[in-house]
Amino acid sequence: MSTTVSAEIITIGDEILFGHILDTNTQWIGLELTDIGILPAKKTSVGDRYDEILEAFRRAFDRYDVVIVTGGLGPTKDDITKQVLCDFFETELEIHEEALEHVTAFFSKRGREMIESNRLQAALPKKCKYLVNHWGTAPGMWFEKDGKVLVSLPGVPYEMKELMKHSVLPALEAHFSLPVIVHHTIRTIGIGESFLAEKIADWENALPKHVKLAYLPSFSGVKLRLTGYGSDRVALTEELLKYGEGLNMLAGIYIYAQNELEIEEKVGQLLAEKGATLATAESCTGGYIAHRITGIPGSSTYFLGGVVSYANEVKEAVLDVPSEYLKTYGAVSEQVAEAMAEGVRTRLGATFAISTTGIAGPGGGTEEKPVGTIWIACAGPQGTVSRKLQLGTLRDVNIQLTAMHVLNMLRQSLELD
Amino acid sequence: MSTTVSAEIITIGDEILFGHILDTNTQWIGLELTDIGILPAKKTSVGDRYDEILEAFRRAFDRYDVVIVTGGLGPTKDDITKQVLCDFFETELEIHEEALEHVTAFFSKRGREMIESNRLQAALPKKCKYLVNHWGTAPGMWFEKDGKVLVSLPGVPYEMKELMKHSVLPALEAHFSLPVIVHHTIRTIGIGESFLAEKIADWENALPKHVKLAYLPSFSGVKLRLTGYGSDRVALTEELLKYGEGLNMLAGIYIYAQNELEIEEKVGQLLAEKGATLATAESCTGGYIAHRITGIPGSSTYFLGGVVSYANEVKEAVLDVPSEYLKTYGAVSEQVAEAMAEGVRTRLGATFAISTTGIAGPGGGTEEKPVGTIWIACAGPQGTVSRKLQLGTLRDVNIQLTAMHVLNMLRQSLELD
Repeated sequence: MSTTVSAEIITIGDEILFGHILDTNTQWIGLELTDIGILPAKKTSVGDRYDEILEAFRRAFDRYDVVIVTGGLGPTKDDITKQVLCDFFETELEIHEEALEHVTAFFSKRGREMIESNRLQAALPKKCKYLVNHWGTAPGMWFEKDGKVLVSLPGVPYEMKELMKHSVLPALEAHFSLPVIVHHTIRTIGIGESFLAEKIADWENALPKHVKLAYLPSFSGVKLRLTGYGSDRVALTEELLKYGEGLNMLAGIYIYAQNELEIEEKVGQLLAEKGATLATAESCTGGYIAHRITGIPGSSTYFLGGVVSYANEVKEAVLDVPSEYLKTYGAVSEQVAEAMAEGVRTRLGATFAISTTGIAGPGGGTEEKPVGTIWIACAGPQGTVSRKLQLGTLRDVNIQLTAMHVLNMLRQSLELD
Repeated sequence: MSTTVSAEIITIGDEILFGHILDTNTQWIGLELTDIGILPAKKTSVGDRYDEILEAFRRAFDRYDVVIVTGGLGPTKDDITKQVLCDFFETELEIHEEALEHVTAFFSKRGREMIESNRLQAALPKKCKYLVNHWGTAPGMWFEKDGKVLVSLPGVPYEMKELMKHSVLPALEAHFSLPVIVHHTIRTIGIGESFLAEKIADWENALPKHVKLAYLPSFSGVKLRLTGYGSDRVALTEELLKYGEGLNMLAGIYIYAQNELEIEEKVGQLLAEKGATLATAESCTGGYIAHRITGIPGSSTYFLGGVVSYANEVKEAVLDVPSEYLKTYGAVSEQVAEAMAEGVRTRLGATFAISTTGIAGPGGGTEEKPVGTIWIACAGPQGTVSRKLQLGTLRDVNIQLTAMHVLNMLRQSLELD
């Protein structure tokens, strides 16, 4: 096994520190580095200040093998980052011909005039290797010293990602002798983290040292991520699959995918396989489930549509929920949830239909039906099932958890069908 | 003016470094610190390793006045962070009676059994001030040394936020003599950043040195954030309001709020003021607009419901779109968009209705109607208006931008009505 190659990720820019923008770059870089066998050991964000940037470079380069820097390269800011890079690597700026051609072509292609600050984007530290950015004007820069690597990339997410995928990651794999790392993701739904951990404790404890398990809980269920370290990719992949199968024996009913697949993608696949269609009737989730389903490209082949029936009149008029149900049982009831699912299924002529009705909060609760009381239902060729959820008081959490539960109910109906 | 109080935000946990979760905490903390006049100067993320955590504490405390630490306090991980805190502040762990009572009550209230690892969550470094976490079991801890402050908080976002709002931020304001900082946010919609910048260049250049302007673009429009620094809160607030008014003269039609207000909140306010109701008919946005509207607590007073008409049959059967429109003009057309809005308005008996129909992508485009071709419409007492959008090829971006445009169209109809 090779020795560990570790990395620090540095972002530059006041806008991140002050919270004006959400930094999603470093999460993405962390995942990508891990995937090729480099260990992200630290992340640092500093502002647009010379001494802070220099100090961050110095400390990162001292400790880690790879330093990935993003941001600080815009036309108004690049002087400072590039100047720090020059001082740190003891070199100076010089117009890079290829970079200048690239910037010039970039502007002329778009019929835009080039100003001096754009031309200066082609001024690079002499000691760097130029990484062409086909997606913008800020260049990528690759530095090497004592076997270590520092890479400076623009902060615009898609420019950074394209440069990483096309230039940086392949170059890092070529530069270092990296261990083979294989990931295997298992998606569970409908069981909390601690209950799942208890259920699979023996299996987890029996994992060998070179296989690590991470629990990644979210409002879409608990994701289990196995990471195997070794030298033989094929053997390692097979080994992880075997552990995945072992988990299936223990917690199969909670596992809906042995890969990265959202629950709405899974039900989409199941519907497509069966040539079945889907309709939704949402009250407390207010369109969120339809939004999740239609977020998947191609969902129009199985999703016919849905009704957001916020007002009781809409439940009656559009979903044909009997008005005596609303009077007798109330809008948040088993009877209404089932009638909503059946109503939208009939009205839209769908094979399957799901529904939600409940009190999302923060207001609207009663003693009998407190905030977080929610009924979900699924109607299909085999009949209708429903279930009561008792959730908390946070509106958006309730909406997300209700979506998870009813999509999982649909999955179970589809798998039984 | 007081001297600057600077802060470092440290997050602990391999899950952030490896990219398993997206860190949204530090953005939120950055904004909140800025709001009370503390300068976020650095952010650091380290893994669950003793020496890395200790080194991060040491360096942060050396340089900055405030150190906010989140994460590393779960029942399985808290030994290490709390041990580092003990060693750093030269103290030791001891069961904190109030914290123990809190954890015990937390479990008994939920009818759950408490195990040893839960009990140990009440073991705190002797030198800390205990901050009770009403929303979970991991405690908050406040340390002081040489006038500087270190706060350790759980990483679960809503627990961290509640602790910050109720304990930490007020305590920081009491502990330090902070400069008076006043923010004034102006929400614009329907104009791009560079066009807006050009329009208001003279106004921006005339701002005095103690007033900073930030452009914060998102898929909900460009937010302008004025930050004033001074010593007299009342005078500063008045001054910023005056600049906001100046902006109104220059770009008033794009400004929908002189405060932090999402567009769906703004239309909700306008609807409520008029005693009017709303219905939605969504095709390409697939329920996202209804989801945005119903994300606002209390929206049930003005939002009746909506129809997600993905299939053409649903447009005909539920929204009463004439089938000859679909045949003659196609589903993505002015005629269908207007018929959808009018259909849902009539069917649900709403005062206003909005609709969307288009090709969200990535597939489904034609030469005549490429991906990103979208029609939006708004029907109300004064009639129906519609508009064509020509967006890009990214599905979720198209969905978000369409929502912004049609909600803005509704706002304009409401303001004219």
